[in-house]
Amino acid sequence: MTTTAAPGSPAAAVATLRAAVEDALDAALPPESDWPATIHRAVRYSLFAGGKRIRPLLALAAGEAISGARGELLPFACAVEMIHTYSLIHDDLPAMDNDDLRRGKPTSHKVFGEAIAILAGDALLTRAFHLLAQLPAGAGDAVVRRRLAASAELGLACGTAGLIGGQVMDLESEGKAIDAASLERLHRAKTGALLKASVRGGAILGGASDEDLARLTRYADAIGLAFQVVDDVLDATEDATRLGKTAGKDQAARKATYVSVHGLERARQLAATLREDALAALQPLGARGALLAALGREIVDRHS
Amino acid sequence: MTTTAAPGSPAAAVATLRAAVEDALDAALPPESDWPATIHRAVRYSLFAGGKRIRPLLALAAGEAISGARGELLPFACAVEMIHTYSLIHDDLPAMDNDDLRRGKPTSHKVFGEAIAILAGDALLTRAFHLLAQLPAGAGDAVVRRRLAASAELGLACGTAGLIGGQVMDLESEGKAIDAASLERLHRAKTGALLKASVRGGAILGGASDEDLARLTRYADAIGLAFQVVDDVLDATEDATRLGKTAGKDQAARKATYVSVHGLERARQLAATLREDALAALQPLGARGALLAALGREIVDRHS
Repeated sequence: MTTTAAPGSPAAAVATLRAAVEDALDAALPPESDWPATIHRAVRYSLFAGGKRIRPLLALAAGEAISGARGELLPFACAVEMIHTYSLIHDDLPAMDNDDLRRGKPTSHKVFGEAIAILAGDALLTRAFHLLAQLPAGAGDAVVRRRLAASAELGLACGTAGLIGGQVMDLESEGKAIDAASLERLHRAKTGALLKASVRGGAILGGASDEDLARLTRYADAIGLAFQVVDDVLDATEDATRLGKTAGKDQAARKATYVSVHGLERARQLAATLREDALAALQPLGARGALLAALGREIVDRHS
Repeated sequence: MTTTAAPGSPAAAVATLRAAVEDALDAALPPESDWPATIHRAVRYSLFAGGKRIRPLLALAAGEAISGARGELLPFACAVEMIHTYSLIHDDLPAMDNDDLRRGKPTSHKVFGEAIAILAGDALLTRAFHLLAQLPAGAGDAVVRRRLAASAELGLACGTAGLIGGQVMDLESEGKAIDAASLERLHRAKTGALLKASVRGGAILGGASDEDLARLTRYADAIGLAFQVVDDVLDATEDATRLGKTAGKDQAARKATYVSVHGLERARQLAATLREDALAALQPLGARGALLAALGREIVDRHS
């Protein structure tokens, strides 16, 4: 997308934001040479493994849709990507999903061993909240309050009612038949909560009105679920080379997916419907919603 | 200590604080019946496994030595205990220290399995920072800023320069001869950093002057190291029943300890010297330092 984006297009704006995220992530972490070097190597290995930066981009786009002050948004954008990466490292562990491959590269525990992989996840989670607690000199009272509110949003999304709860439910559902409502609950917690917190946190840091926050929440709810539906479609239809991870793994593990529960066609329709709902929620924002709309399309259309 | 404390004594005050911590921890976590129940059972199993609450007591005592506003201190006190508990659960994992017993009870992964143990640690770490981001209604700007400053203190202490760095160094030192300076560095990171952050965070929330913060930092540095020295002495001299965990384990794992590096007598002397230094740092605080002094004595004298 970076190479083909026309200047001034939403795609070009997304590419600019993505570059800003890469720089900010690099600056937010100690260099690999810092004591103890092993853990910093492991943290950077996973954080710079070619992730698409969807969550930080959503945070930046949401914040900029409201107020346009990027500097205040970047620490939060970094925090959500660190938390996403920590969750991948821990989910891939032998005791969890036991994955050898992630984004086309060996997973953290395959490279560094289980102990360091666990600690690298812990370090990313810790650094995320630490980063949000560090204020730039001279930050005003409103900025301080918004930081804390965005941290609270993130804390809730990553806790037992969100990310962690979803992973527990995922582990406990393996090999069992679960119904459509349970599947949605699982993914709203495991994938949706962090995507929603990325959008809402960005909006809160931008100083969103209650009305705009409600609009962006509706957008985020739809995008969050669409994201997982598309993931399930991809797992069922793509091969490992394009996917960058073990394909057909969900089916092999007898995991319930949107494809196994609803069938491939209905899953595709559901993704399209959710995309329309997300875009409709952005309508009242007009041009300010252009970046979020572009990201929404990117998320849903990534299999094409 | 609770049953023998004379009314009005520091020991009675410590018992009162300890009860406040227990209540606050219980209130800060979802009930076991909340979805998904497994993770809440695992979190509570480890958090209420008979810990002595040294870190939250240090936080409360430091804050009260400065200003006496306990309500504002309790969320921070809970957060440091949650983080301590998360670090124990992860350190005990088979991939790390592979411990079956903690405080006289089977460790988390022995009861709930490795996956849930990893997630229970993650949940406690997440909840700690989430708790600090949740403000009581009507909190003033100064309170908000102190919350963020205390969170930053904690984030630094738990990161790769503190708790996590210490655990990495510990893993990498196993079976190797390390010198006295490296041993001190290891323990200042692995044990000292969180104890220091507990004291400093409490003092910051209490609104400490730079001068008082420096005094309490000196106290915390001494207590933090003394804590580990005493742990090593206990591991070398006590049996499993009194210790509540596998005794002599450090020696069996060929881990460097203050006893293996300095010998038992010099380790005991070092603990006594550190205790004196801690108490000397409290002198200028007069009666306000009584609780911290009592806690310092409790930490160093727990083997008697």
